[in-house]
Amino acid sequence: MSEHTPPPPPRGFPEAEYHGRLMRAQALMARAGLAALLLSTEAEVRYFTGYLTRFWESPTRAWYLVLPVDGDPVAVIPEIGAHLMRQSWLSDIRTFAAPAPGAPGLDLLAETLEELTPKGSRIGVPSGPETQLRMPLADWATLRGRVARAFRDDANIVAVLRRVKSAPEIAKIAQACAIAGRAFDRVPEMARAGVPLEEVFRRFQMLCLEAGADCVPYIAGAAGAAGYGDVISPATGLPLARGDVLMLDTGAVFDGYFCDFDRNFSVGPPEAAVASAHARLIEATQVGFAAARPGATHADLYRAMAGVLGQRPAGRLGHGLGMQLTEGPSVVPWEDAPLVPGMVLTLEPCLDLGSGRIMVHEEDIALTETGAVWLSQASPAEIRVLEPA
Amino acid sequence: MSEHTPPPPPRGFPEAEYHGRLMRAQALMARAGLAALLLSTEAEVRYFTGYLTRFWESPTRAWYLVLPVDGDPVAVIPEIGAHLMRQSWLSDIRTFAAPAPGAPGLDLLAETLEELTPKGSRIGVPSGPETQLRMPLADWATLRGRVARAFRDDANIVAVLRRVKSAPEIAKIAQACAIAGRAFDRVPEMARAGVPLEEVFRRFQMLCLEAGADCVPYIAGAAGAAGYGDVISPATGLPLARGDVLMLDTGAVFDGYFCDFDRNFSVGPPEAAVASAHARLIEATQVGFAAARPGATHADLYRAMAGVLGQRPAGRLGHGLGMQLTEGPSVVPWEDAPLVPGMVLTLEPCLDLGSGRIMVHEEDIALTETGAVWLSQASPAEIRVLEPA
Repeated sequence: MSEHTPPPPPRGFPEAEYHGRLMRAQALMARAGLAALLLSTEAEVRYFTGYLTRFWESPTRAWYLVLPVDGDPVAVIPEIGAHLMRQSWLSDIRTFAAPAPGAPGLDLLAETLEELTPKGSRIGVPSGPETQLRMPLADWATLRGRVARAFRDDANIVAVLRRVKSAPEIAKIAQACAIAGRAFDRVPEMARAGVPLEEVFRRFQMLCLEAGADCVPYIAGAAGAAGYGDVISPATGLPLARGDVLMLDTGAVFDGYFCDFDRNFSVGPPEAAVASAHARLIEATQVGFAAARPGATHADLYRAMAGVLGQRPAGRLGHGLGMQLTEGPSVVPWEDAPLVPGMVLTLEPCLDLGSGRIMVHEEDIALTETGAVWLSQASPAEIRVLEPA
Repeated sequence: MSEHTPPPPPRGFPEAEYHGRLMRAQALMARAGLAALLLSTEAEVRYFTGYLTRFWESPTRAWYLVLPVDGDPVAVIPEIGAHLMRQSWLSDIRTFAAPAPGAPGLDLLAETLEELTPKGSRIGVPSGPETQLRMPLADWATLRGRVARAFRDDANIVAVLRRVKSAPEIAKIAQACAIAGRAFDRVPEMARAGVPLEEVFRRFQMLCLEAGADCVPYIAGAAGAAGYGDVISPATGLPLARGDVLMLDTGAVFDGYFCDFDRNFSVGPPEAAVASAHARLIEATQVGFAAARPGATHADLYRAMAGVLGQRPAGRLGHGLGMQLTEGPSVVPWEDAPLVPGMVLTLEPCLDLGSGRIMVHEEDIALTETGAVWLSQASPAEIRVLEPA
């Protein structure tokens, strides 16, 4: 580790972090007239408990967290998760056999909900944009039939809370960004004309891990002559060729927090159109960064960046970032809630180069009281050139 | 690559694979009286289209696939996915702006469903065990209010089809197993007393990538004196110590197909109890393998393995495997449908060693006409010992 590499932030959070999240949620629940929240997804459960495992990759079992409007959260989880959940700050952890005949998980969840909420009260379930309910639809129907409470949406409470990150959260995202930044710096070691794109993807993930990533849940990219067709494709076996633009986009994770940014490289010297497109993308990012300050809106960022691009972008120009690779809100012209300190977002301008080719640049920033700070290290205007070894 | 390493199987599938899946689905839909299936998850969409991207990591957008009982599937997807979906075998690809004001995706989906199904017909949505609906609950309510069709469960059609793998699918899983096997063989190069578990996790993922994994969506493991507390935890910063049992469990992926198996290692010579527990786990796996033949049931496998373990296991003793890290059915005493050729499953015996410590072994097998074949390379009875460098 060089003298310029700070030590990684501590893992986990002090318990006060979870108390704060819970209190803020409960204040909003009280205002929305909700007796409890029922949460079911990885990010929702982890946000309030710190429960971190990649076991959510298995769809077999449902996991539940009940947040009453007063008192501590109650975990209602499969037995296989008990050992790990007991290491969290929660004291009320109820477990059920799963898989199992019948529906012991639903039985336990129904009992818990009825115990924690008064008859006739309302239970909020995240239902708005970017949410999912992580349980089978048939079980959801059963639950609603069994619990004499009104299930409604969560008044967007969880999404609103998660939009604003604490300093320790931002430190984790910054660490993920620093890790991916070190990996991007080493791309020229392994990417050059003749190397298949799938080998570049593999080596890039290895570089992220070597630089300190816990895991690399997301990688996408593309390579094509003077641009590429999209930014979400998996690798092909095609070798890089001189004149290609190589784009790598990664979501590397440190302690459960993502970075999400990309880098473009030119295989050999860039065509003039590529060089100028890259410079324009960087300029748009810089203009977006300058516009990012409390009180401005996502729409302001969008307009500032779109102005530099000089064309109407096809999609959003950035998004929130944190426990998930992408989070709300989006950098779009109709998002006019003000930016507030603690928001973390990506700036992601896209240029249409014609003939089905695009170029996309992306950086990660955090909002402070006075403006924005870079979490990823802002790229220079010149596209980086990959030369033969 | 040594002479013993066969070349990887080709990526993707011939179009006939998708036609076969569609025809089998449509035959079951006709029998179940379903005019269409509405699919929304990564595995469901990929099963019928081949659409492979890690972009599902972003929760922003919903993606839909409509399978009519007659005719080809129709993709109803965000614009950002059009370029990649056009490389699939599908010809009818409808795109919507997302994120966007209003709900253009729901509008387009509703129109598509009404166009493809007659009034008064029924549309199936996967709703049973291990399924999820990947769209916001509020959107689901809107859709049901807008489309004058009866939405019901999919009669388990997608799960039933996915249980039996084709030869090209099994080849991909076998490749993922071979890749992870090579990585496990190299664990002694980097894991020894003094190395923090989180470094072992990182290095192991790098070994998987170097061996040819496209990505490593799942890793779990543990290390503890003469056993460990669970099998789903993330790494800690604690260094391995002599006498520890190190368990690593991975879901490495090749071309969208998972392996899922683990290996146990003893840091220094094992205690007698550890050595004998390992030998018993291997024996249970071998007995499960021998019992795995068409006509036997998952319950038979469970009973055969549990008999060797000599204790009542806390959970299941294996599960299906393929496009997801875990798939149904589970190896449990109440699963009495017969095994059929083409099923791929894990054998995962667990021993409770007392004092909150367990040991778990796991291998991957495929069912053939005459019995089972190993996809992972069956482990010897002796636990592998990690010695100082």
